[in-house]
Order: sequence, then C-alpha cells, then structure tokens
Amino acid sequence: MVSDYSNVVPVLMSGGAGTRLWPASRSDRPKQFLPLVDERTMVRATLDRLIGLDAAEPLIVANAGHAGLVAAELRGAGFDPTRMILEPFGRNTAPAAAVAAIELSRNDGDPLMLLLPADHVIEDVVAFHEAVHHAAALASAGSLVTFGIVPSHPETGYGYIRAGEPVDGSARMVAEFVEKPDRETAQRYLTDGDYSWNSGMFMFRCSDYLAALKEFAPQIEAGCLRTMAESVRSDGVYLSSEQFADTPADSIDYAVMEHTTRGVVIPLEAGWSDVGSWTALWEIGQRDDDGNVLIGDVTVADTSNSYVRADGRLVTVAGLDNVVVVDTHDAILVTSLAKAQSVKAIVDMLKAQKRREATESTESD
Amino acid sequence: MVSDYSNVVPVLMSGGAGTRLWPASRSDRPKQFLPLVDERTMVRATLDRLIGLDAAEPLIVANAGHAGLVAAELRGAGFDPTRMILEPFGRNTAPAAAVAAIELSRNDGDPLMLLLPADHVIEDVVAFHEAVHHAAALASAGSLVTFGIVPSHPETGYGYIRAGEPVDGSARMVAEFVEKPDRETAQRYLTDGDYSWNSGMFMFRCSDYLAALKEFAPQIEAGCLRTMAESVRSDGVYLSSEQFADTPADSIDYAVMEHTTRGVVIPLEAGWSDVGSWTALWEIGQRDDDGNVLIGDVTVADTSNSYVRADGRLVTVAGLDNVVVVDTHDAILVTSLAKAQSVKAIVDMLKAQKRREATESTESD
Repeated sequence: MVSDYSNVVPVLMSGGAGTRLWPASRSDRPKQFLPLVDERTMVRATLDRLIGLDAAEPLIVANAGHAGLVAAELRGAGFDPTRMILEPFGRNTAPAAAVAAIELSRNDGDPLMLLLPADHVIEDVVAFHEAVHHAAALASAGSLVTFGIVPSHPETGYGYIRAGEPVDGSARMVAEFVEKPDRETAQRYLTDGDYSWNSGMFMFRCSDYLAALKEFAPQIEAGCLRTMAESVRSDGVYLSSEQFADTPADSIDYAVMEHTTRGVVIPLEAGWSDVGSWTALWEIGQRDDDGNVLIGDVTVADTSNSYVRADGRLVTVAGLDNVVVVDTHDAILVTSLAKAQSVKAIVDMLKAQKRREATESTESD
Repeated sequence: MVSDYSNVVPVLMSGGAGTRLWPASRSDRPKQFLPLVDERTMVRATLDRLIGLDAAEPLIVANAGHAGLVAAELRGAGFDPTRMILEPFGRNTAPAAAVAAIELSRNDGDPLMLLLPADHVIEDVVAFHEAVHHAAALASAGSLVTFGIVPSHPETGYGYIRAGEPVDGSARMVAEFVEKPDRETAQRYLTDGDYSWNSGMFMFRCSDYLAALKEFAPQIEAGCLRTMAESVRSDGVYLSSEQFADTPADSIDYAVMEHTTRGVVIPLEAGWSDVGSWTALWEIGQRDDDGNVLIGDVTVADTSNSYVRADGRLVTVAGLDNVVVVDTHDAILVTSLAKAQSVKAIVDMLKAQKRREATESTESD
C-alpha cells in the first residue's frame, strides 16, 4: 500500500437539506451546521475526522447561502477557508463531484478525491482512516471506489451494494447497486454477507471520475465544464447559475457507479450513521438505563426509549415510551421513534402554509 | 318552592393549586385564573354562571397572593371587587366556608351560602340554576345540601355520595360518603343508581353550617371566629395569619358532612367537570374528527385522540395517539392521556430541584 496520501483531497459535500431533522434543521441552517451528536457541528466533526489521515487540504462543495457558515467551519478546524465551491442551488452529487474534480484538476494536478457527505457520523476514526488508505491504493490504480457500510440490522431505509469478485484484501468488485429493500429482503441481505449499505462516500482519481461521467452522463460533464468556465472566484468558487441550471441533476450512483465496470466496494465497519432521522440520533446517542437520550434541560418521569432534546426551555416528558420530543425557540416536534419519518408530512404542511418555521431558523422581525 | 333568591350568597372557593394542570397552572396563577376551557378564566366562567340565578352579590375566598387577580375577575364580571376574604395560606374548605359564614352573618343577616369551587366547569347553566333553586328551598328548611353529580362513567378519581331516603323531588338524604372506589366498585356504583360524585358544591344557611361545625369540629369553628376577629379590612378581608395557622385544616366533607344527620344530596346532571387533569380537558374539549383537541398554533399529522395546547410557538405532533402536549413560554409537558396524572411526579421532581418553573409562571429577571 502507498504511504503518502498528500495526493488525496477530501471533498466534503454539504448539500443536504436535513428536512427529516426538522425543527432543529432548517433550510438556512441544515443539519450539517448543527451540533446534533456532540458539541461540534457535523461539518466540523467531518473535518476533524480528517486529522491523522495525512491527506491534502479539504475542499467543500456547499450552497452559496451557507458560504459564511462553511468558511467558519474550515477556519475553526484549521483549514484554508477559501477552499469552497459554492452552488447557487443543489444538482445532486454527480455535478457536485464533477465541479470539485474540475477544480482540483486545475489546481492540484490529478489528485484522488475522497468524497464525503458532510453530515454523517463515523465513530471509529482509525477504521475509517484504514479504509481510506486502502481505497487510495485502489483508486490510484484506476478503480472507482465506494465505501460499503457493513450492515448491523435489516435496514429498509438505505440502498445496498452487492459485492462480487474479490479484488484486494476485503475489497471486492461492485456486482450491483440495489434499491431500498423490503423488510424480508433486508433480512436476507443481512444474513447473506455480500451486501453493504450504500454510504455515499467514494474515492476516485479526478480524471477517472470525469472520464466515467463523460462516458455515462456526458451532459453532466459538459454542463459542469461550462459551469466552471463561467464561475467567479472570490472567497470561494461561485458557480454560474445559468450554466449550472442547464446541468442535469443526478447522483454519483445513478450517473456513474451503476454503469462503470471499474467499481470497487471497500467494507467499512466504523460506527457509521447518516443521521437521517431523529430515530438515528436516538440509536447513536448516549442512552441512559431507561433507554432515553436526553439532551439539554430535560426532566422525565416514567419514560423510556425516548429521544428528548431541549434547546433553552425546560422540556418534560411523563408516562411515555418510544417518543421523540425536539424543542427549538420557535417550534416543537413531538413524534414517535417508529414514525419519526412523519416529520416530513409536518414540514410539507407547513411549507404549503408558507410558514417561516418550515425553512428559517432565525426569528422573524 | 321559594322564588326570591336574594338571600342566597354565592361563595366561590379559589383555593386550588391546580398542580395536575402544570405547566399551564403555577402557584402564582393556578388553574382558576387561566382560560383553560374557553377564552375566560375559570373564576370568570364561575361568576358568569351566576347571572340569572337572582342571587346576592358573590363573595370569594382566595389566597391573599391572588387578591389582584380576584378583584379583577369580580370587576370584570360586574360584581363588587371588595367582596373577597383573603387567606394567608390554605386550610382546606371547612375553614374557608367558616370564615365566609362568619363574614356573611355579620353583614348580610343569616343568608344561605352557595359554596362553589372556582375551577369547575358546568355546561348546562339552566340545570345548575334549577338545582341551586331546589337546594335553596331545602337549605332554608335547615338541610345541609350537597350537590351530587350524576355519574357518566365508572370514575375512580372521585369520592362518591350514597343517597338514602327521598326528601323532596329528586333530593334524598345523604346515606354515606364513600372514598374513591376501584374500577369494579365504580362500575357497580354506576349501575346501582344510588351513587353520585362528590362535587364539592354545597348550600347551607350560614348559622346551620357554623352550628354543625361547632358540634363536629369545634376547633375549626373557634379558630375561624378568632381569625375573623383579628382580620384586617382594606380592599378585602385579610385573615390573621397567626390565628388561621392555629385553625385545623379539613374539608367540609370530613369536618361536617360525614357527621351530620341533616345532609341532603341534590342530583346535578349538567355537564360538570372538575377539570382535574389534562385528560379532563380533552374530555370536555371540542374534539375534531380524529378525536384531537387542538388549541393555539398546532399542526398535526397522523395523530389522533390527543390534547395539544400551544401558547405562542408552533407545536407539531406526528404519528402519535393518545398524547398530551402542553407548551408554555418556559416549559413543555409531553405525556399520555392515560397517564396525565404523572405530571405530579414531574412537578415534585422540579420542586425538589427548586426549579422556578415548578411554581412561578412569570419570567425570571
């Protein structure tokens, strides 16, 4: 394996809206900018996780509206705060990775991109670094590497990757990407052993990704080249709205990974979570003897297996099991752990009513 | 029956702490001073219920700390705001009724006292007035009248009154006061027909009550006479702390009604509720098609049979059944309709922590 990782550039993708974590997460400050798991924002935790990786300075692709937040996070973590590509709007991950690849090819030669969502949790940093180093060796040799999370339970909320022929150590060829399974299928995947969760983390050589994109999604590649040609540089790279709007939106999975024959999956068993819902935060949280995760000024009685998050005011829960209570300065959500996805219905209703609380975290004047 | 009720003086007892309706109800503004059922406070609704009764001006026995609140309610309802007896602390209902009887005997001859808790709901005002008029006739003749609520369900949370021999129309002698029953016993009481709920409403001639008190609880009678002798008159009658502290605390039921042979029970079927818990407020509230009572800025999805009360901020509930959510400016309670009594455990914990939110409704400075 190689031991110099200075040609690995971590690229954080900060595109998520985090609607399922409303009311904490809002459009103007989505989940990656919130201290949901510990006292750090998730962007900051993602940046901190790079320490010890011996990689190059990270780059962040984010919404232009979050430029100030992103720069502050980069500065706080000790990185160059101008290494930002700022999107006027989201076009999903394939274009985000493409503009990053174009930018890096221009300035940094042809490095390896380590594509990381900015809003995931990985508890075991050592295991993460080992997997990245393994991926670097394979990506250097031309593979398009995806990280497959070793499943801990029959999850129906994620897509899966089926692994094929062995490549090198634990790495295997990608045989197939499969959609979110039903419960029974998920159980089969869990016992089968060939399946892992699609984490949305990747490692490619920039030129390899752009070549694959040109082959399988030429409109995205062309659109991103035009977008970057008309981008404006100041405190970051501001993408051209006009050109980016003409670029098709798609995910790296759909645009490239499902088509390439060079896909390799590296298993990652590192306490990963996409923190996709309040239920996920309960699962990864510090549970007390009653199975409760209690954050902030919370008092409970006769309450178990619940996630309760206060944010200033006193939150009390009595005589309940399996509930989620999230308080913010202007809105409260009460739901059940089992149905925490129904927060989406609430947010949709609030958006239909054009309620400020649906999207903005700041107080109205 | 008599038709002049100018000798009936309604006496409102405003002594309740309303702990079971925390966090809306606090020591400095307990439930009777809150607009829990409609836009009026419960004291005001109780005063408004007197209109059409053709009775004398009401008198209120209340905590001295609530003098301003009580005077405002009396004034708002069009009554004399100085007709207040102000207790330094509560000694339960027998002393409260005694100081009222002493005060009324001094100023108003020997009227009939209509003792009414200031925090109950009675929906059918006509039925209430008819029962009061019936009671006036019996109290005029020397009976100690209690109003027995015709049970609508096998309630285990109330004491019951067993009716004996018929007296006059629907009125019957009190055979026995019985403690809160278990479920099975409550069911038997419901089908039996001789049992009614002990409402805490009474009608006596002042002299009859004081005579009975002298007979069955002489220390209370003596203590109240001393208390009134040393009381101070200004915007109301302020009781002597020293003397009132020496007066035993007891209820009218225990001190008098369980001992007298002159007890009469008049059945009342008038949509009564003691509004003793959030569950009671759900029961008497306007339920929508999903069985929800939603008050204030509330949005729900996939939620049923729940009581949700907002007070300024947006409160949202998703994917739950049978819950209670009550928000206030500084504290939130989330509990279940079935276990709403567990709010007491919360308040006890908060009091043990000397939390301001346990007792005070005002913002700290």
